[in-house]
Amino acid sequence: MTDVTTPGTPVSAAQLEREADITRRVLESFDGCADPRLRQVLQSLVRHLHAFVREVRLTEREWDTGIEFLTRTGHITDERRQEFILLSDVLGASMQTVAVNNEAYGDATEATVFGPFFVENSPEIAQGGDLSFGAAGQPCWVEGTVTDTAGKPVPGARIEVWEADEDGFYDTQYGDERVAARAHLFTDAEGRYRFWGLTPTPYPIPHDGPVGGLLEATGRSPMRASHLHFMVSAPALRTLVTHIFVSGDELLDSDSVFGVRESLVKDFHEQPPGTPAPDGRDLGDRSWSRVRFDIVLAPGGS
Amino acid sequence: MTDVTTPGTPVSAAQLEREADITRRVLESFDGCADPRLRQVLQSLVRHLHAFVREVRLTEREWDTGIEFLTRTGHITDERRQEFILLSDVLGASMQTVAVNNEAYGDATEATVFGPFFVENSPEIAQGGDLSFGAAGQPCWVEGTVTDTAGKPVPGARIEVWEADEDGFYDTQYGDERVAARAHLFTDAEGRYRFWGLTPTPYPIPHDGPVGGLLEATGRSPMRASHLHFMVSAPALRTLVTHIFVSGDELLDSDSVFGVRESLVKDFHEQPPGTPAPDGRDLGDRSWSRVRFDIVLAPGGS
Repeated sequence: MTDVTTPGTPVSAAQLEREADITRRVLESFDGCADPRLRQVLQSLVRHLHAFVREVRLTEREWDTGIEFLTRTGHITDERRQEFILLSDVLGASMQTVAVNNEAYGDATEATVFGPFFVENSPEIAQGGDLSFGAAGQPCWVEGTVTDTAGKPVPGARIEVWEADEDGFYDTQYGDERVAARAHLFTDAEGRYRFWGLTPTPYPIPHDGPVGGLLEATGRSPMRASHLHFMVSAPALRTLVTHIFVSGDELLDSDSVFGVRESLVKDFHEQPPGTPAPDGRDLGDRSWSRVRFDIVLAPGGS
Repeated sequence: MTDVTTPGTPVSAAQLEREADITRRVLESFDGCADPRLRQVLQSLVRHLHAFVREVRLTEREWDTGIEFLTRTGHITDERRQEFILLSDVLGASMQTVAVNNEAYGDATEATVFGPFFVENSPEIAQGGDLSFGAAGQPCWVEGTVTDTAGKPVPGARIEVWEADEDGFYDTQYGDERVAARAHLFTDAEGRYRFWGLTPTPYPIPHDGPVGGLLEATGRSPMRASHLHFMVSAPALRTLVTHIFVSGDELLDSDSVFGVRESLVKDFHEQPPGTPAPDGRDLGDRSWSRVRFDIVLAPGGS
């Protein structure tokens, strides 16, 4: 995408009409679509896509570049790598979709991006269990409650947690079949939960593919602010997909996927070696951290 | 994409501001891009992409469907199949790009979509040669001239021609390495050309993949109006990518990729068996057709 169009080159009225006519014909081609929602979505997509092409006067070489970019994005995507989600993330389309679908509801916990690293069928851990399964990093005690917006505890809520290790890698990036730094657990009868995870550290999104090339070409960093992923679900309540972020992290203002919400930034309290653990675990000469995250679920099933 | 949002659900001002803020932050992330054209293209893309998400209140399930659709589109694309070009074609983005880049210039021949079936390094044929190389179809004598917009003949112009056989398949769809129904030739000293091709017949774009699914879900036909592809190039003149279409074809008004331009619809004259061929070729008891296509190239290199 290196052609530079001449800004301000006038486009004749006849030409503009010719371009608008193409858009009109494409919109009409969807008039017979029996599914009204699908028709609405595709007609809106066509209008915005064509408006983009016209606005920037997209060159044919740039169109080629776009096709080739999408092709490479498709080819690097497999069971363990989802480059289209990364693309949506770095263009802010993921966070915009999250925002559209999670209008602030009372004091319910805010949502943020899902990301490409969630995996179904994580192992279950007991209350107080350790989700690291050998992944490297500083131990972090995470505890809190799950309540509804009336403050009522939610027992049996399913909490999925996943995170990168201290080298910045999720288990799906290890190149083998290991499952680590991910698990699920259920809240107890009082809606409480507690587990051992790893203190989150900053890491780059995978940047050896087309999306990394895009970030590099535009002078953007691939770094994500340190975070721990949560997905929390319970009957008759809205499923929450979110992270918690680390207060004081320098990257809070430049997260590469625009996921940071101020309400999700939490104090991770550093504990020097020798500090007794809440569950009596023997951590030897290691330091550890602890954080509290009280989760409030909005009403509404799914 | 089957969720139906409640039309007219009011969105609060605070929520709209929250959504606009995300777009603003994404736009700012490209402010440091050293290439001004790349910055312009990406910021425009982000604005239109976010506007689309907000306008339709895209659900998270629909976003999933979109990611999954793009993933399948990437996976079916290979050296011989380009599903992203098909997608661009059926959304009219290809034709819109062609329109933006080919503002009518005097009486220069109009451009249309490139399509996914061009292949580099086609065989060369002599004037009057046959490009079918065994592909099935009615023989068609094609002749014309290449001139500039002042009417001056262009000798040595390179003419690439490619088309589907009578079963609707290009050679790249045969599943083997055959090269057929494609070739290139050069205009003679008077800017004239002539060759044997096949009378174009209607055919569906490949519709066993994600793009075919999209067309089916929206009640659109995959059929293309009958056509013969041309790409014509000569020094100091603008390269022309176009088709000619067959006058009387029922599909002229419903071409699945919106490629038809009235000026490109030509009379293909049917010749009964026994009609002597222009070059004395013995066609036995076969009928054939003939068409004239005089090509006018606009000024400007490439």
